Amino acid sequence: MLPFSRVTIIGLGLIGSSVARAIRANMPDVQIMGHDGDADVRAKARKLGLCDDVSDQAGTAVIDADLVILCVPVGAMQEVAESIAADLPDEAIVSDVGSCKQSVSEALAAALPNATIIPAHPVAGTEKSGPEAGFATLFKGRWCILTPPDAAPEVAAEKLSTFWKRLGADVEIMDARHHDMVLAVTSHLPHLIAYTIVGTADDLGDVTEREVIKYSAGGFRDFTRIAASDPVMWRDVFLNNKDAVLEMLQRFSEDLTALQRAIRYGKGDELEALFTRTRAIRRSIVEEGQDDDAPDFGRKH
Amino acid sequence: MLPFSRVTIIGLGLIGSSVARAIRANMPDVQIMGHDGDADVRAKARKLGLCDDVSDQAGTAVIDADLVILCVPVGAMQEVAESIAADLPDEAIVSDVGSCKQSVSEALAAALPNATIIPAHPVAGTEKSGPEAGFATLFKGRWCILTPPDAAPEVAAEKLSTFWKRLGADVEIMDARHHDMVLAVTSHLPHLIAYTIVGTADDLGDVTEREVIKYSAGGFRDFTRIAASDPVMWRDVFLNNKDAVLEMLQRFSEDLTALQRAIRYGKGDELEALFTRTRAIRRSIVEEGQDDDAPDFGRKH
Repeated sequence: MLPFSRVTIIGLGLIGSSVARAIRANMPDVQIMGHDGDADVRAKARKLGLCDDVSDQAGTAVIDADLVILCVPVGAMQEVAESIAADLPDEAIVSDVGSCKQSVSEALAAALPNATIIPAHPVAGTEKSGPEAGFATLFKGRWCILTPPDAAPEVAAEKLSTFWKRLGADVEIMDARHHDMVLAVTSHLPHLIAYTIVGTADDLGDVTEREVIKYSAGGFRDFTRIAASDPVMWRDVFLNNKDAVLEMLQRFSEDLTALQRAIRYGKGDELEALFTRTRAIRRSIVEEGQDDDAPDFGRKH
Repeated sequence: MLPFSRVTIIGLGLIGSSVARAIRANMPDVQIMGHDGDADVRAKARKLGLCDDVSDQAGTAVIDADLVILCVPVGAMQEVAESIAADLPDEAIVSDVGSCKQSVSEALAAALPNATIIPAHPVAGTEKSGPEAGFATLFKGRWCILTPPDAAPEVAAEKLSTFWKRLGADVEIMDARHHDMVLAVTSHLPHLIAYTIVGTADDLGDVTEREVIKYSAGGFRDFTRIAASDPVMWRDVFLNNKDAVLEMLQRFSEDLTALQRAIRYGKGDELEALFTRTRAIRRSIVEEGQDDDAPDFGRKH
């Protein structure tokens, strides 16, 4: 009944450690092997008991696996995949959790030309990093997007799909290029904007950083959460989904210029029309179960 | 011991109704009079028992007041102030809760040339609107900024300061022009950016609105909360704090262009350096008690 019985997780940060915890919670009979390139992270993972065994070498961790999930920054995928190539069993399926799928697909195919590769992206996370930050319910009710290459056997995608559903996720199959466009809008552009505005607010002469922090409840603090996300992970996302991100950024900039113009020339009707339209989108997101309806994200008051 | 014994609230939406509830909770002996220009809102306020009495006319509501707080969109301040001019007692203090202070100061002074006016801005709110959306603890631990004009008697600002502290707020005195610069960064620009990006995502040809909603947990949904804020209130904010907003928007656009360039030319070090810096600002905001440390805003998982 289990889609896989021996799963190896390479990279034991927020996502990798959450996958381990979710497997334990939902498929306790699965044997979990782990590895992380950072000795500190390995020590923490051992202490937390995230896996049945944590190996010092990536190769050792995959020897026995029927599923290997790479949970490392997208810029590190190819190198990590190369490090397991010699030890990877022929019948193992290789997957990942990266936020860009075209570049990762290519990187994995280059490093593991004979492996069965089904790239995946669970659209879930928090702004926290590291093995202590993960939790078993992170994927519950969230979407996991699989982008199987045309040549991949259908049964492999089906097994991976079953795996993610067992962890609580809903699964969608998508073309890698389309995934990268969709996520450029729903994830990469929002992060880029948040990083920018938090940087802008840090740089002002006439308003002190102390004031920005003090009065951040006016809206600014919402952006700081996203802008606290893992710097290396996000550096790699922007470098590896460059075309789609730049395309979306261009559209955003044009829209921002239009709004700037509406403010400058006092076009209140235009502003009000946009602000009414955006309110409806929020409503749809809540109705779809993709966010809570609690005011102010349910912050304590 | 009470700073005021008869308080009139004009405008019974999210903020006005929260002021009424906070008075009831913290100073139950204060008599609360209310008015709203919208008959539906008046009916709801009566049903909720927010005030001791809700008048159909603004003038009637202020006849007996020693404090009048205008809780209406900033663009409506002058007209509302004019509507109470004939009935306002000489000794009453007039205040407001608007998000821009220079334009409101001028509007109130023009409408009520002989009144004691102490403009105020509690930096608190949620994305919800209307009298049902308010709650008594909205101002707890948040800052309320007073911008008393030079000519205002010091005792008036002191009484209003005591009033807001009794509602749970911390109080800061600031020059109106400086307030408008600070809030342009910490509140107005974030709202403008959020409205823009949610609008951008609604307009794409190659990614459907359905996909944007479905995969919004990647970051986009955070922006939709702010972009669900009251359209009329925010239209007025941008029109009434035009100079500071346009100035901050210009700086933001320059920073965004620099980041765009870093992505285009693959400057990973620049990206990582910014993303590391912004993480520290988040930490300061949490340390200052201006946001919770709970991952993902404490959303249920």
